[in-house]
Amino acid sequence: MSKKIGLVMGSDSDLPVVEKAIATLEEYGVPYEVHVYSAHRTPVPAAEFAKNARANGFGAIIGFAGMAAHLAGALAANTTLPVVGVPVKSTHLDGMDALLSTVQMPSGIPVATVAINGASNAALLCIQMLAIEDKELADKLDAKRAASAETVLEKNRKVEEKYNK
Amino acid sequence: MSKKIGLVMGSDSDLPVVEKAIATLEEYGVPYEVHVYSAHRTPVPAAEFAKNARANGFGAIIGFAGMAAHLAGALAANTTLPVVGVPVKSTHLDGMDALLSTVQMPSGIPVATVAINGASNAALLCIQMLAIEDKELADKLDAKRAASAETVLEKNRKVEEKYNK
Amino acid sequence: MSKKIGLVMGSDSDLPVVEKAIATLEEYGVPYEVHVYSAHRTPVPAAEFAKNARANGFGAIIGFAGMAAHLAGALAANTTLPVVGVPVKSTHLDGMDALLSTVQMPSGIPVATVAINGASNAALLCIQMLAIEDKELADKLDAKRAASAETVLEKNRKVEEKYNK
Amino acid sequence: MSKKIGLVMGSDSDLPVVEKAIATLEEYGVPYEVHVYSAHRTPVPAAEFAKNARANGFGAIIGFAGMAAHLAGALAANTTLPVVGVPVKSTHLDGMDALLSTVQMPSGIPVATVAINGASNAALLCIQMLAIEDKELADKLDAKRAASAETVLEKNRKVEEKYNK
Amino acid sequence: MSKKIGLVMGSDSDLPVVEKAIATLEEYGVPYEVHVYSAHRTPVPAAEFAKNARANGFGAIIGFAGMAAHLAGALAANTTLPVVGVPVKSTHLDGMDALLSTVQMPSGIPVATVAINGASNAALLCIQMLAIEDKELADKLDAKRAASAETVLEKNRKVEEKYNK
Amino acid sequence: MSKKIGLVMGSDSDLPVVEKAIATLEEYGVPYEVHVYSAHRTPVPAAEFAKNARANGFGAIIGFAGMAAHLAGALAANTTLPVVGVPVKSTHLDGMDALLSTVQMPSGIPVATVAINGASNAALLCIQMLAIEDKELADKLDAKRAASAETVLEKNRKVEEKYNK
Amino acid sequence: MSKKIGLVMGSDSDLPVVEKAIATLEEYGVPYEVHVYSAHRTPVPAAEFAKNARANGFGAIIGFAGMAAHLAGALAANTTLPVVGVPVKSTHLDGMDALLSTVQMPSGIPVATVAINGASNAALLCIQMLAIEDKELADKLDAKRAASAETVLEKNRKVEEKYNK
Amino acid sequence: MSKKIGLVMGSDSDLPVVEKAIATLEEYGVPYEVHVYSAHRTPVPAAEFAKNARANGFGAIIGFAGMAAHLAGALAANTTLPVVGVPVKSTHLDGMDALLSTVQMPSGIPVATVAINGASNAALLCIQMLAIEDKELADKLDAKRAASAETVLEKNRKVEEKYNK
Repeated sequence: MSKKIGLVMGSDSDLPVVEKAIATLEEYGVPYEVHVYSAHRTPVPAAEFAKNARANGFGAIIGFAGMAAHLAGALAANTTLPVVGVPVKSTHLDGMDALLSTVQMPSGIPVATVAINGASNAALLCIQMLAIEDKELADKLDAKRAASAETVLEKNRKVEEKYNK
Repeated sequence: MSKKIGLVMGSDSDLPVVEKAIATLEEYGVPYEVHVYSAHRTPVPAAEFAKNARANGFGAIIGFAGMAAHLAGALAANTTLPVVGVPVKSTHLDGMDALLSTVQMPSGIPVATVAINGASNAALLCIQMLAIEDKELADKLDAKRAASAETVLEKNRKVEEKYNK
Repeated sequence: MSKKIGLVMGSDSDLPVVEKAIATLEEYGVPYEVHVYSAHRTPVPAAEFAKNARANGFGAIIGFAGMAAHLAGALAANTTLPVVGVPVKSTHLDGMDALLSTVQMPSGIPVATVAINGASNAALLCIQMLAIEDKELADKLDAKRAASAETVLEKNRKVEEKYNK
Repeated sequence: MSKKIGLVMGSDSDLPVVEKAIATLEEYGVPYEVHVYSAHRTPVPAAEFAKNARANGFGAIIGFAGMAAHLAGALAANTTLPVVGVPVKSTHLDGMDALLSTVQMPSGIPVATVAINGASNAALLCIQMLAIEDKELADKLDAKRAASAETVLEKNRKVEEKYNK
Repeated sequence: MSKKIGLVMGSDSDLPVVEKAIATLEEYGVPYEVHVYSAHRTPVPAAEFAKNARANGFGAIIGFAGMAAHLAGALAANTTLPVVGVPVKSTHLDGMDALLSTVQMPSGIPVATVAINGASNAALLCIQMLAIEDKELADKLDAKRAASAETVLEKNRKVEEKYNK
Repeated sequence: MSKKIGLVMGSDSDLPVVEKAIATLEEYGVPYEVHVYSAHRTPVPAAEFAKNARANGFGAIIGFAGMAAHLAGALAANTTLPVVGVPVKSTHLDGMDALLSTVQMPSGIPVATVAINGASNAALLCIQMLAIEDKELADKLDAKRAASAETVLEKNRKVEEKYNK
Repeated sequence: MSKKIGLVMGSDSDLPVVEKAIATLEEYGVPYEVHVYSAHRTPVPAAEFAKNARANGFGAIIGFAGMAAHLAGALAANTTLPVVGVPVKSTHLDGMDALLSTVQMPSGIPVATVAINGASNAALLCIQMLAIEDKELADKLDAKRAASAETVLEKNRKVEEKYNK
Repeated sequence: MSKKIGLVMGSDSDLPVVEKAIATLEEYGVPYEVHVYSAHRTPVPAAEFAKNARANGFGAIIGFAGMAAHLAGALAANTTLPVVGVPVKSTHLDGMDALLSTVQMPSGIPVATVAINGASNAALLCIQMLAIEDKELADKLDAKRAASAETVLEKNRKVEEKYNK
């Protein structure tokens, strides 16, 4: 059985974004747990979750947060598991604040940052990490990558038919 | 005797910035303590310092950090004392990453943010907070404000003499 | 009786933002006064308000303004009370103009800047300042902080129930 | 005799920038006065200067300031003379803070903003304003514009000689 | 009779912005002319308009343009009358492209730049220029400035009544 | 004989950047002419050059300019030859002003924009345009592309030798 | 018969933007082909298309992509035909990510970048390239440019009639 | 024996940054290979390296590139191994172009982005990925994290001694 992925959001208003990560994990049959722990309002449970994550069978953690998005960094400060950060677009500045707060981590405490609201890619990145030592999962990744290419090519054929005389 | 101001920097490379705050506190005779606690490398002592700060006689805390500057927010998450944040310019992005990471705090956990590298103003802000209930300190603030105005006017006189015929 | 908080907005179009600060002050039972004084259209009453604020029983002032947001700075130039600045998002540039105009204050005249439209945090910051010397208010802050953590944990439980099998 | 131009800088550290404006005014023989009045440290003399500027024979005012550059706006708030703003590059953010603080003025109180550190153009703009009703000055502007074109064309000839075979 | 103000827009899609300038000019009874001349699609009429503007009785020109907003600069290149630039917000980048294209003019060819979409202030700035030598217009500016202050104070009274107990 | 490439810089201070384009054109033996024509100081010769460029045997034009970089757009407004724009980094804003002023052209008047200070690529782009109908030039482009790949691979071999044990 | 223009989009969600380029090509009767090839999901067909484009009768290629817009660069890496890049505005950051990813190409591999979503100008740029050696096409470009100027002047007449008394 | 980490830089000018990643890998005794493959100048070897990386015993790949930094994305397009991207600061825009080009990847092809020039964290992230299934490596990570905390605390003691009386 694969290791679990921990999904931690700073606020339940991030759920619509988080659900795209869940969908990807479900698609790959990778087990996960979802939590709401704020880096600022509930720093202790957030830290505790990260501290115990490896012992509790997690392979990687994703932190979702907006604005001054400290959550992924706060999780990373409390574990040496890989931590992925999803900058969530909030009401202002179009997500630039969350992006810089997530990616510009100091030396020693990396956060693997994906695109603004890039929840599905965050899940995929975790699956890729698990697949380093899991051939079955790696094969699944390759198969889905090929299928995704096929989808693009199918769209290409439709576009070609419509526009190229 | 006045309450103390806690100065916490994320890295001792921030010391040249921190020293401008120290100089301002010394100028006003306000007691202080200086610490190096990283939000990411030593999250527990950072949190402990903040948690015990009120009981330990602190009136306000200043957090100094660069890049994904989480320190002031991490301190604010562990105390209800006012926390001032100084975004420190690091090697890239001219301090914009630290500014957004410090100021864009979520509802419930404010950080009183000053200008990039604005250490002296951070100290002054703490002194202004203490002066709300300390008439002597308030009088000192007013006196120094007046002196600073006088300095500007003195410079004005020199400039006027040199340039205005 | 606690000192008052002065809320000054540059335009009555800022009222929807200001009301979030009022709600927070009401929640804590902290007295306040609300005014519309423009730094540019009514500079004299704005300056007068700030100049007399300490004598009139104010403990701190919040300035709310958008665009080239000079109001908080103009208030700070006329008092040594702590001044909090709320950059208000206006029609363009997503509030970045107001943020930089508010936070990048020169040495000697600090403005405690909060997030764009962060009115509730501005109020909270003022309450934290008053609570430095007001144990009852400090206890209230701690209690509400704990309640807010409990709310997050309650949301966490709901999310856990829904998503974690 | 032409009306005077008022040059007001927020800090004497802005003098190297201001001197480029002075040089331009000298070149046109337009009278001027130079002052150091900080919008934040000496708000009263700054306002007084602006309030009395028209009566004192000024035709336009230039405000020079960096960071949260409120000076031009503060002058404009106290006069209906045209006010030109020069955003001065300070230590961080490459002048973007000063530019937005100067140009994004609210309706009713315009500031004619020029490029970051664009002191010579600020002076030129004031001279253009005076020249609306001063044919001699307008002729001088036209003559110097033609001379400047000739300088470019001379440089063009040198470049053509060197590079075009 | 006062000199005319020339209003030149790069595209008739800018009309809703231009109309705010027209309204201000009407309010002051200052004569104006409105034109659509694109710096890129009709460079010759744009240049011709500017070249002849002084002789045709214009006192100042306003250029309205979005995106790579060259219009105000192109007008300024062909006249020594003061040229005001209004950066118009277009579909992307929230007007930042138009702002930088308008304000960052090279030495020798100033453009008096106002806020993004700041059409009313552009008109006001032109009126202020005309008023340098027109006491009646200056008095009108002062009177309206006072009336605008009164409007703010009236709003202040309403807000005070509603919120201050 | 190949068509000529016109290199037009707004100021001779842009020469160090322009020379990188010249070097590339020399490398390919493509004829060129270099000129200094400012969009703002000498708009007429700039426009004349562009208007006559096709008749004078030019195949494409490169405009080099910094700050509110209107030159490439001004050239493009006066010719239907392809115009390439090189945003030149000036003293402030790290070239972002020149980039946006060059690339954000309105519909109908394209400017082919390259990277900030990307003079060599601008020349290469013009050569690519000429090579559409010039097999010899196309072959040269392919040969040099292959050589450039070989250079990278040679560097790769050196790095591999040094670091891979 | 003219050479063909290749239009390659990274995702069929870019079609509304691509269609503006198609419309322009149709207007000029320039032949084209449309394809959906993702630089990341189908890198091989994207590269193959570019590699064979010159042999397949293409004169230039346009790449349309959003976010980390690598498509135009990936096409340019596989051909020495001129490649035009259209940065497509995606859900966040207003197209700035796509603009920088498209325009900031390294030396040796230029991408002719147009404005964000500037599809029509991308097509026009390709037509201008073909017209270097195609007098008929050049005449058409000149004719349409003149017609576009006439349209602006017609709009000018309507605006003049409405606003100028 | 642990899986290898592939370090691929787009240009050997990135070597000073890459060497910080090498140092970290050496510190942990994790095997690696270093290559120079440009996404644009040598797209085929870059793609080949990525395609064969899993079969060749690599566990993760790091791509280092500046400007329109496509390298990490180009590698990720050709493997389902986790790919880490290091945005390298180049001559302009302070690394913001490289950051956005690296992090804003489309759905399906994630790149785990670290801070600008954050090479050491990129290596650490790869080690964390390998450590998911490697207890010895995980213990080493924990030990070094603890040591790094001790270093901060040691610096804290020195600062405390010097500043706290």
